[in-house]
Amino acid sequence: DKPFVLIAGPCQLETRQHAFDMAGAVKEITDRLGIGFIYKTSFDKANRTSRNATRGLGLELALPIFEDLKKELGLPVLTDVHERDQCAEVASVVDVLQIPAFLCRQTDLLEAAAQTGKVVNVKKGQFLAPWDMKNVVNKVVDAGNPNVLATERGVSFGYNTLVNDMRALPIMKEQCRCPVVIDATHSVQQPGGQGTASGGDRRMVPHIATAAVSLGVAAVFIETHQDPDNAPSDGPNMVKLDELEALLARLRKFDELAKVA
Amino acid sequence: DKPFVLIAGPCQLETRQHAFDMAGAVKEITDRLGIGFIYKTSFDKANRTSRNATRGLGLELALPIFEDLKKELGLPVLTDVHERDQCAEVASVVDVLQIPAFLCRQTDLLEAAAQTGKVVNVKKGQFLAPWDMKNVVNKVVDAGNPNVLATERGVSFGYNTLVNDMRALPIMKEQCRCPVVIDATHSVQQPGGQGTASGGDRRMVPHIATAAVSLGVAAVFIETHQDPDNAPSDGPNMVKLDELEALLARLRKFDELAKVA
Amino acid sequence: DKPFVLIAGPCQLETRQHAFDMAGAVKEITDRLGIGFIYKTSFDKANRTSRNATRGLGLELALPIFEDLKKELGLPVLTDVHERDQCAEVASVVDVLQIPAFLCRQTDLLEAAAQTGKVVNVKKGQFLAPWDMKNVVNKVVDAGNPNVLATERGVSFGYNTLVNDMRALPIMKEQCRCPVVIDATHSVQQPGGQGTASGGDRRMVPHIATAAVSLGVAAVFIETHQDPDNAPSDGPNMVKLDELEALLARLRKFDELAKVA
Amino acid sequence: DKPFVLIAGPCQLETRQHAFDMAGAVKEITDRLGIGFIYKTSFDKANRTSRNATRGLGLELALPIFEDLKKELGLPVLTDVHERDQCAEVASVVDVLQIPAFLCRQTDLLEAAAQTGKVVNVKKGQFLAPWDMKNVVNKVVDAGNPNVLATERGVSFGYNTLVNDMRALPIMKEQCRCPVVIDATHSVQQPGGQGTASGGDRRMVPHIATAAVSLGVAAVFIETHQDPDNAPSDGPNMVKLDELEALLARLRKFDELAKVA
Repeated sequence: DKPFVLIAGPCQLETRQHAFDMAGAVKEITDRLGIGFIYKTSFDKANRTSRNATRGLGLELALPIFEDLKKELGLPVLTDVHERDQCAEVASVVDVLQIPAFLCRQTDLLEAAAQTGKVVNVKKGQFLAPWDMKNVVNKVVDAGNPNVLATERGVSFGYNTLVNDMRALPIMKEQCRCPVVIDATHSVQQPGGQGTASGGDRRMVPHIATAAVSLGVAAVFIETHQDPDNAPSDGPNMVKLDELEALLARLRKFDELAKVA
Repeated sequence: DKPFVLIAGPCQLETRQHAFDMAGAVKEITDRLGIGFIYKTSFDKANRTSRNATRGLGLELALPIFEDLKKELGLPVLTDVHERDQCAEVASVVDVLQIPAFLCRQTDLLEAAAQTGKVVNVKKGQFLAPWDMKNVVNKVVDAGNPNVLATERGVSFGYNTLVNDMRALPIMKEQCRCPVVIDATHSVQQPGGQGTASGGDRRMVPHIATAAVSLGVAAVFIETHQDPDNAPSDGPNMVKLDELEALLARLRKFDELAKVA
Repeated sequence: DKPFVLIAGPCQLETRQHAFDMAGAVKEITDRLGIGFIYKTSFDKANRTSRNATRGLGLELALPIFEDLKKELGLPVLTDVHERDQCAEVASVVDVLQIPAFLCRQTDLLEAAAQTGKVVNVKKGQFLAPWDMKNVVNKVVDAGNPNVLATERGVSFGYNTLVNDMRALPIMKEQCRCPVVIDATHSVQQPGGQGTASGGDRRMVPHIATAAVSLGVAAVFIETHQDPDNAPSDGPNMVKLDELEALLARLRKFDELAKVA
Repeated sequence: DKPFVLIAGPCQLETRQHAFDMAGAVKEITDRLGIGFIYKTSFDKANRTSRNATRGLGLELALPIFEDLKKELGLPVLTDVHERDQCAEVASVVDVLQIPAFLCRQTDLLEAAAQTGKVVNVKKGQFLAPWDMKNVVNKVVDAGNPNVLATERGVSFGYNTLVNDMRALPIMKEQCRCPVVIDATHSVQQPGGQGTASGGDRRMVPHIATAAVSLGVAAVFIETHQDPDNAPSDGPNMVKLDELEALLARLRKFDELAKVA
């Protein structure tokens, strides 16, 4: 029952400078608050709504940046993988391999990620019941890697809408027997909600995060950006960097209460 | 931003003695915790899954009991109404008229309840978006009664299942401009889930209540019973009386934090 | 396995003249096509989204019009009831009492309707599983009236959206042991979808009706209007009167095939 | 507006003999009925609920069998691909590359499939609105391949349940500007519904297929097996081989009517 860890960063890796700016800024905040911090960013947005959307720097350019971020800022790094053959290479640098929600049932990908020995964070599919995540987690564990995280990020609720079922958190905690994470950013996404891009409502992030933290989570996943409205992806649901510290400070209080009470 | 009020009691009015026992027991708890308490019980379960299910004592036998409960225990009483012509009679005794979720769009019932001048607690329909509750609340307000409560009790999510969208709480607070209540009991109902009766999972009540209280609610609605497994209705989702105090004490801490932070 | 019956008319009773015009026009069409016809109209829209919306002529003005429609056009009439004490009076004139979807679990209303001896058409609640309709139908049957119809009109699917689960038709046919009706009008409603009124998409009516008829239904419920865009309610989902005949002629072919094949 | 084509076969490739038996048996039926036939089978079930479930023969063993099936029976073959690097190899033999529903937003996979020049059948994700399929289809078309099929196979509706929104068929036809397929097998799946495997209800297949065909589809996808209850995957929702001909003959009549009327 340790304090929650923050998994945060901009949705996608834009430039080396931007990555260092964002990682440095968030690190200062989490250092002040005494919160553990894992830097999250994507080298490739592999499932954009539209083919014309920006996808990120790509693996080759990203890995050296990840490496330098780790070295210079002393930060663990999390990024997502999409196909088996990326796993080993990505794992040579990053600390946490993330399995995207759409891919949470792809057995080969889960096993390839597992076999790297790195921590594997699996996002619960938008189509998956919380009690079915134990099968997903077991695919990683049975492949020899007990270091799994299970992340709630909302479930399909009609069209272009997700809802968080807060019961998913205690159910996954009990059944998956692994740390449970709340992704407060993608939970408030409106998939495809803008025609050729996904919408979202960042005003809801603090509510989802607070409710989840009050039930006791191991980590909080929040994407953040200095200027979300101009970010290349997930802008509508990223938290503004200059609002992050107040949010985290507040979450920290609910976290303490949840873990003491 | 006052402490939450507890709306509690057994689902249905069983006998005079049972009502006094339950009301007295809960009152002792809330007195100890310094929480306001409104006694809730139904004189008639008008929408049971099956026609053969027990419905309650009925209005005529119930009203004198409500009157005595108020007089002898000094408690405000809440009960639900189902048709227009019940409103005035019920309002001659009780303090809060509750509109059941299925009936939340019945204009005449809302107006008849409004016209009694008593507080009206409208449950959000299982079929209603949070932003549509403002139209419901306005039906009461426009009928001349500004004393409305809006209660979240879950929304249809596939068959025989409800889900709480925690975003509903801040949305209703902002748009309905009235106190917002979480009904942690019916939120965990599985409607029709037992063939000829509804199921539920009372283990989820503390989670739903905690998450909601952390977002700041005016009242918490929890049905309780000394022996829920043998209660005539909503047994699977009522909290055991002897577990109520610990739950409320814990909720009270999250409530304080939500209203300070 | 008789041909489907048409239940049709404008959503609400506007004026005596309008009722006669509409009923006469639809009767000419169904006479030409050899389809049975029950005239449907509401004397009161008791659950409008907004309190300010038009509700209809009211019971007192409506009943003499219903009586004359029956006498002069030789048509059976269907209308909906909302409270117990309306049932006997309405049944003194109309042939089919309809229970609105939101009210399908109100035991007293179902029983009062049953006790009139008239046919009772119960709409399946937007919150109800198809297998739970047998409990609803049984409330009518067990009250002594075996003349029940069960109507599919869509189920809640996220916010402001309904979806038809076509499996509901065979499931209700098997389990309710009564004629099953498709309401192709309200199935395409977008409840509350226009802020203070419900939206809809009438272009989907033929698709829903065709799919349902192909599975074999006893009746098709379609609201129609000579000028839906200016109708006082359900305009967005009513079929234009001058498109009705072609639709019915097409449905009739699928109906024949469904009942022969 | 040609007659529908049948896409059928057992869920997974079990043995060479089984594949020839099944393909031959279905071909006899479709020859008798004058229906076009594409043989469908999976060489790898890459997203089973549980890691311990049977996955199929694998690509290397499968391709020669596919080749012989095509040569000896003169049948086009469809199979699904899961990662980019499978596409070219699979396309060297099979005629239609299928993108699984969970993977329908993986841009790279869609492009790799497109670049083979073969027909690409994309299943609509369980989490996707029908109007969002145009973005998916455009990823293939914009990669230079106009030969796309879009398949409806149900959308998430609460937990462990799918529902078919029949409106998806006309919406996709209009917006995707490509042939639309109904997958009547996976539509009646209950994902994860048996704990460590998915359930289903094959009795619903004829209803879903009939409703969809009546709206006019280009192809019907039905998995079939001589002994579904003992099949290694999707048993609960596969149609028994000896019931296939009667079903297809009936569907053919609705198809004719849909395309004439």
